[in-house]
Amino acid sequence: MNKLEYYLSHPVNINMARGIPSSELLDLSNDMLDVLTSKTNFINHDNIDIRNYGSLDGIKEAKHLFAEILNTNEDNIFIGGNSSLNLMFDLISKSFTHGVCGNTPWSKLDKVKWLCIVPGYDRHFAITEYFGIEMINIPFVNGDPDMDLIEEYIKDESIKGIWSVPQYSNPTGDTYSKKCIERFAKLKPAAKDFRIYWDNAYGIHYLDKYEPIDDLLSLCDKNGNPDMVYMFASTSKITFAGGGIAALAASKNNLEDISNHFKRQTIGHDKLNQLRHALFFKDKEALLKHMDKHAEILKKNFDYIESAFEKEIKDLATWNNPKGGYFICLKVDHKAKEVIELCKKCGLTLTDVGSCFPYHKDPANSYIRIAPTSLNEEKCKVAVEVITTVIKSLK
Amino acid sequence: MNKLEYYLSHPVNINMARGIPSSELLDLSNDMLDVLTSKTNFINHDNIDIRNYGSLDGIKEAKHLFAEILNTNEDNIFIGGNSSLNLMFDLISKSFTHGVCGNTPWSKLDKVKWLCIVPGYDRHFAITEYFGIEMINIPFVNGDPDMDLIEEYIKDESIKGIWSVPQYSNPTGDTYSKKCIERFAKLKPAAKDFRIYWDNAYGIHYLDKYEPIDDLLSLCDKNGNPDMVYMFASTSKITFAGGGIAALAASKNNLEDISNHFKRQTIGHDKLNQLRHALFFKDKEALLKHMDKHAEILKKNFDYIESAFEKEIKDLATWNNPKGGYFICLKVDHKAKEVIELCKKCGLTLTDVGSCFPYHKDPANSYIRIAPTSLNEEKCKVAVEVITTVIKSLK
Repeated sequence: MNKLEYYLSHPVNINMARGIPSSELLDLSNDMLDVLTSKTNFINHDNIDIRNYGSLDGIKEAKHLFAEILNTNEDNIFIGGNSSLNLMFDLISKSFTHGVCGNTPWSKLDKVKWLCIVPGYDRHFAITEYFGIEMINIPFVNGDPDMDLIEEYIKDESIKGIWSVPQYSNPTGDTYSKKCIERFAKLKPAAKDFRIYWDNAYGIHYLDKYEPIDDLLSLCDKNGNPDMVYMFASTSKITFAGGGIAALAASKNNLEDISNHFKRQTIGHDKLNQLRHALFFKDKEALLKHMDKHAEILKKNFDYIESAFEKEIKDLATWNNPKGGYFICLKVDHKAKEVIELCKKCGLTLTDVGSCFPYHKDPANSYIRIAPTSLNEEKCKVAVEVITTVIKSLK
Repeated sequence: MNKLEYYLSHPVNINMARGIPSSELLDLSNDMLDVLTSKTNFINHDNIDIRNYGSLDGIKEAKHLFAEILNTNEDNIFIGGNSSLNLMFDLISKSFTHGVCGNTPWSKLDKVKWLCIVPGYDRHFAITEYFGIEMINIPFVNGDPDMDLIEEYIKDESIKGIWSVPQYSNPTGDTYSKKCIERFAKLKPAAKDFRIYWDNAYGIHYLDKYEPIDDLLSLCDKNGNPDMVYMFASTSKITFAGGGIAALAASKNNLEDISNHFKRQTIGHDKLNQLRHALFFKDKEALLKHMDKHAEILKKNFDYIESAFEKEIKDLATWNNPKGGYFICLKVDHKAKEVIELCKKCGLTLTDVGSCFPYHKDPANSYIRIAPTSLNEEKCKVAVEVITTVIKSLK
């Protein structure tokens, strides 16, 4: 019985489909649950009782935290609920029902189109698909999105936005270069209500060292495009995926527009959890110390996978060696579907084929998103052996 | 110098515009912040790690709690974020962009109309106004909404919903009678996507004793209208207005529809706060014991106000003596605007005139919403003296 036959007859029951934190990573934040107690002073920096209603845009302490995470100014922060995806969804929904900053609601337009840097994050694409937005693929070129193509497409007024994960991108692991970020800031879209959805989900999820990208919001402002970007982040993978806080950063003009919509929807988000986070991360040093611990745990699996791939499938596939984030992007030309299906038969669930592309269509049937963050060392080794065994069997 | 002159020259600086809990009420829940700690077992009843992603509809423990609060079956519960208003907003928003249970999205209809029981809750009316829905007033008749009128209006297919606060209504304090609730369950709307928005915000906010209303969801089911109602509640006024949890209850069919929409929007709401609430309220006895303490505090202000009104303005105004909820509804025929404005000059901020009506239009300029819950005893006395002084001065 060869290895493949062995796994087919003894399936492993491992799920690495989603980028979710392991128990070990979650444990790093358990102490956060002890910092806010019945004895806490509930009157915050803004002199409000955080247990009560109010503060639509969040408390100052939480804004300060997200200013660090997003490397931007705290006056530009709006704190949401526990999910940055929810903030993105809400903004697109309001763009359809009410329009962006007084522009025509998208529901009244014949066509709304969107640029999608690919491969990218499936939940982004699911939102634009849900709203019937036509999605257009923008490939990476040497680690950056194809900016020439973006600059060309945005001459079309029906292009209303772009999904981007600028740092340790999901799933390619790429971080946009300084030059690329500058080109983003200089975009001159035909549509006044074009917005860059800048999802910095992994901004401080470095594997080696903290290397923040430039603040696109300030750069847009400097280039006469203050309202062109919404930046997003959350603590879902910093503290608890099931109980973090999320935020967006935007220009004063956008924040005013956003607050005018949100004030019909809610009186305010959970300020107790906002303060809990701010108390746990006293300052930037504490935040980065915490992320160092994340890196130490995450790096083990990433290092192991990269060396195993190097050893076993060097000539059969390509992959990135990311400096941060949650994914390794494995490329097996024209064979992704077969690999994923055969892994499934061996008991290893990978992200569905095509899920990193709009409409689930990977044009070259090549990309496999490897999400090792939820696995312990042992399971990670087994998963990698299944993957490499399957790929070798299909050569 | 008479009393009015005194207050005009010595304004009191008291705000009773909104129904918000006092520090004393919030203090009742401080211990909830100690029940979930770093030592908690995070693997819940459904065998999931509540710190991690997942559970779009909430954890079993929280569903159980809301089944008690809403006096319904826990299988019908969907747990949201920290705001039931946000759930209502989201459902209406999705009705516009995508439609209810496969029906035509409201954005594609020429006209969408809504029934509003008046006087009612301003934030409800603000949502329907935001979406451009035409609002139609339904008055109270002897403590119940005018059901004859409702039964007549819903023959119009463009009527898509109704706002209702069935227990200790905001602001009238009325609780719909058993017979009235039965008539709700038997409604035969022309529109298949007509929904009763049943906001049971004050269901367990009794002042004297716990008297739950019948479960409209079961009644609708028995009457062949299983999908006609969405019921809502939150713990905003039970635990923390700035950090509670919210829920809706609906039929299986509706829950499936709702989940299909919400799954694009979020991976799940804050499960740590869900468990925190469930641990604090171990069982129904603990929940009602907690509400007894609320009642004891709230009752003082309500009793004081009612007796002061009786003594001072008996012949000049009418008001309700509610058995629960957060408001006393004061009626001064054709003089509400003047009273509110003169109180403002004396330093007492009341809810804006007309705010209990769609489009802020109180047809008879009569209703003043008295919201005494945030005031301590001393401030409550001063506020009442300002109000009665003003009303007497205008006779």
